[in-house]
Amino acid sequence: MVQTGLNWSALLERNGGVLRSSAIRDLLSVTERPDVISFAGGLPAPELFPADGLRAAFDAVLRDDPGGALQYGPTPGHRPLRELVAERLGRRGVVCEADDVVITTGSQQALDLVGRVLARRGMRVLVETPSYVGALQAFAAREVSFAACPGDEDGPRVDALRDRFGAGCALLYTVPTFQNPSGGTMTLERRRELLASARDLGLPLVEDDPYAELRYDGEAVPPLRALPGGDDVIHLGTFSKVLSPGLRLGWVVAPREVTERIVLAKQGADLHTNELVQRAVVRFCRDNDLDAHVGTLCAAYRERRDAMVAALAELMPAGTTWTRPEGGMFLWVTLPAGLEALPLLADAVERGVAFVPGTAFHIDGGGAGSLRLNFTNSAPERIREGVARLAAALGRAGWPPES
Amino acid sequence: MVQTGLNWSALLERNGGVLRSSAIRDLLSVTERPDVISFAGGLPAPELFPADGLRAAFDAVLRDDPGGALQYGPTPGHRPLRELVAERLGRRGVVCEADDVVITTGSQQALDLVGRVLARRGMRVLVETPSYVGALQAFAAREVSFAACPGDEDGPRVDALRDRFGAGCALLYTVPTFQNPSGGTMTLERRRELLASARDLGLPLVEDDPYAELRYDGEAVPPLRALPGGDDVIHLGTFSKVLSPGLRLGWVVAPREVTERIVLAKQGADLHTNELVQRAVVRFCRDNDLDAHVGTLCAAYRERRDAMVAALAELMPAGTTWTRPEGGMFLWVTLPAGLEALPLLADAVERGVAFVPGTAFHIDGGGAGSLRLNFTNSAPERIREGVARLAAALGRAGWPPES
Repeated sequence: MVQTGLNWSALLERNGGVLRSSAIRDLLSVTERPDVISFAGGLPAPELFPADGLRAAFDAVLRDDPGGALQYGPTPGHRPLRELVAERLGRRGVVCEADDVVITTGSQQALDLVGRVLARRGMRVLVETPSYVGALQAFAAREVSFAACPGDEDGPRVDALRDRFGAGCALLYTVPTFQNPSGGTMTLERRRELLASARDLGLPLVEDDPYAELRYDGEAVPPLRALPGGDDVIHLGTFSKVLSPGLRLGWVVAPREVTERIVLAKQGADLHTNELVQRAVVRFCRDNDLDAHVGTLCAAYRERRDAMVAALAELMPAGTTWTRPEGGMFLWVTLPAGLEALPLLADAVERGVAFVPGTAFHIDGGGAGSLRLNFTNSAPERIREGVARLAAALGRAGWPPES
Repeated sequence: MVQTGLNWSALLERNGGVLRSSAIRDLLSVTERPDVISFAGGLPAPELFPADGLRAAFDAVLRDDPGGALQYGPTPGHRPLRELVAERLGRRGVVCEADDVVITTGSQQALDLVGRVLARRGMRVLVETPSYVGALQAFAAREVSFAACPGDEDGPRVDALRDRFGAGCALLYTVPTFQNPSGGTMTLERRRELLASARDLGLPLVEDDPYAELRYDGEAVPPLRALPGGDDVIHLGTFSKVLSPGLRLGWVVAPREVTERIVLAKQGADLHTNELVQRAVVRFCRDNDLDAHVGTLCAAYRERRDAMVAALAELMPAGTTWTRPEGGMFLWVTLPAGLEALPLLADAVERGVAFVPGTAFHIDGGGAGSLRLNFTNSAPERIREGVARLAAALGRAGWPPES
């Protein structure tokens, strides 16, 4: 029997090339090699996962109500978890009820669902430069066009957009606190200006807030959604950074009209998020002090950030600069003028260190001279060794370290 | 401070009314009342979940490698689970390797991802009539138009479509074995004809196969993907019906070009499926006999199907007909001429029984005189009582039972 088969290339082409791969995800295959010190991923420290507490929580849930935990669940999420999220957000100034919270399969799904209800083909999405790759990917699936929001060290300057874009944009996406990838934090004043400008422009703001609880220095800045006029902000959060990313638990808080649409979109996307895991996290938070655990994380990550900043200062060639974030997971390094990060990567990996080139975070091919370093996934001594390898790779590229 | 706020109705309207609610999901709120006997959902029997085995599996995984189980995982899925799925499919004649399998967040996500890579606005999606509501929802998010594939008791008749649609369709969606909602199974001969016609038309076939292992009588019919010429079939499966739906674990097997696109789409949709749960299911299947568990399910569900068929024969008014499926979870009931299911529902719920009206499964407003009954979620004596309540509601509608 002759199998002619379908012409899949042609069939898939009908749907266009709207899906872009993530440089970060592709890099994960390299970073699994034990000899590579990876600053590439956005991974938490696995040795700090509260494994015993989670183990006990899963055991208790499967002992006490297996029929409920293993059955289909409601699309908006397990109500006690929605209550728990609302209560925790309330302590950060975000006033909301369980009904305002939709549990998502990681905050990546929240990005996807927000894109589904607010963006469509040809609409413009405003993003910071640089911006989180996963958000670009989620919105790109809607076939939007991206526009860089002008900004400075204090954050995006939406007021500058008024003349250029008017009211036609789908949304503005921002990570205001410990931004991925830059590590920067939007000032309180800029947050107020952004809220006012967005309201004037009728522009939906999407606040992605996965890192704010990981603060190592300085004073907390309230989320956009917690500020006056913030009720229209679509606020995304996750348990990935404070508990475990493998559990895939995130949430979105938004105006009721938006959450209703999001729930409809989620029905078609995956029916509901894992019921057992939702119940186990509720149980974990009842039997353990999540805030104390976050305190443990902050102490460890502070030490790692300091180790990376110290190693960079000691080992990197003159002309290199970097951010010193007050929290989060990432440093943003700018190479000496004329050097590019992407060509450096192969040599760096050969020397046993990985990072993400800055271009991955830019919608416009910019960022060639910069790179992102993660400092949460390696112990301090490994961080120093990794920075030394990076400096050596830079040395071969023509910029020997001063040491 | 005056809060003008955003005009969300207008902002959401820009994206059109492409999202449809699921009548089934909306009904779940009613069916949670303990006094209601629900034939509405597609729920497995929770008392049959292998709770002890799963509890031990989660405990072992969180004891042996918590760092791996709680960390970010690869987008295509945990490799040992992909191997396990490939091995189990191989025993049903579907020859594939781990690399051909993508793990999804339930098979609902597989439907969503298939829609993303193969369908786009304005394209036509061919479906059986009646068809699974969740698939209609997933594809509707792509703003496709639906067309009913003509069919008969043996299955869809794609040969009849040649003149009407030509090569312009995105895909044909079918549940060939123990179809949801009808309970029917496509004959082997029709499967062969469908494969040949689809190949001639260049039409992608999407085979949704969640129920085939739940067979109570008769001989197994091979999946489309297992037949000669089936290599192009996109085959979807799930652990929801044979293990637990709350775990949200499904998979898709497809040609390599398609799975590569699906993995890219999944990156943006939710990064990856819960890593802990994937590992726990691998562990469960190593330490337990999943096939023996399926045998237990089949014995219990056979008894329930028989109880429902017997109660219908005894209690329903003359002129009512129903299917007697050889497996799966659903019966399809056709009411006496002139009676409609939707107006009956309110009275039925008042009497303490729920079902899904047939219109929910039709793209064209058809099915008014039919309804779907689930028989897996209630014990035999409850099934008889539920059918009696349904018959009483029908009696008030003017068709008293003969008894």
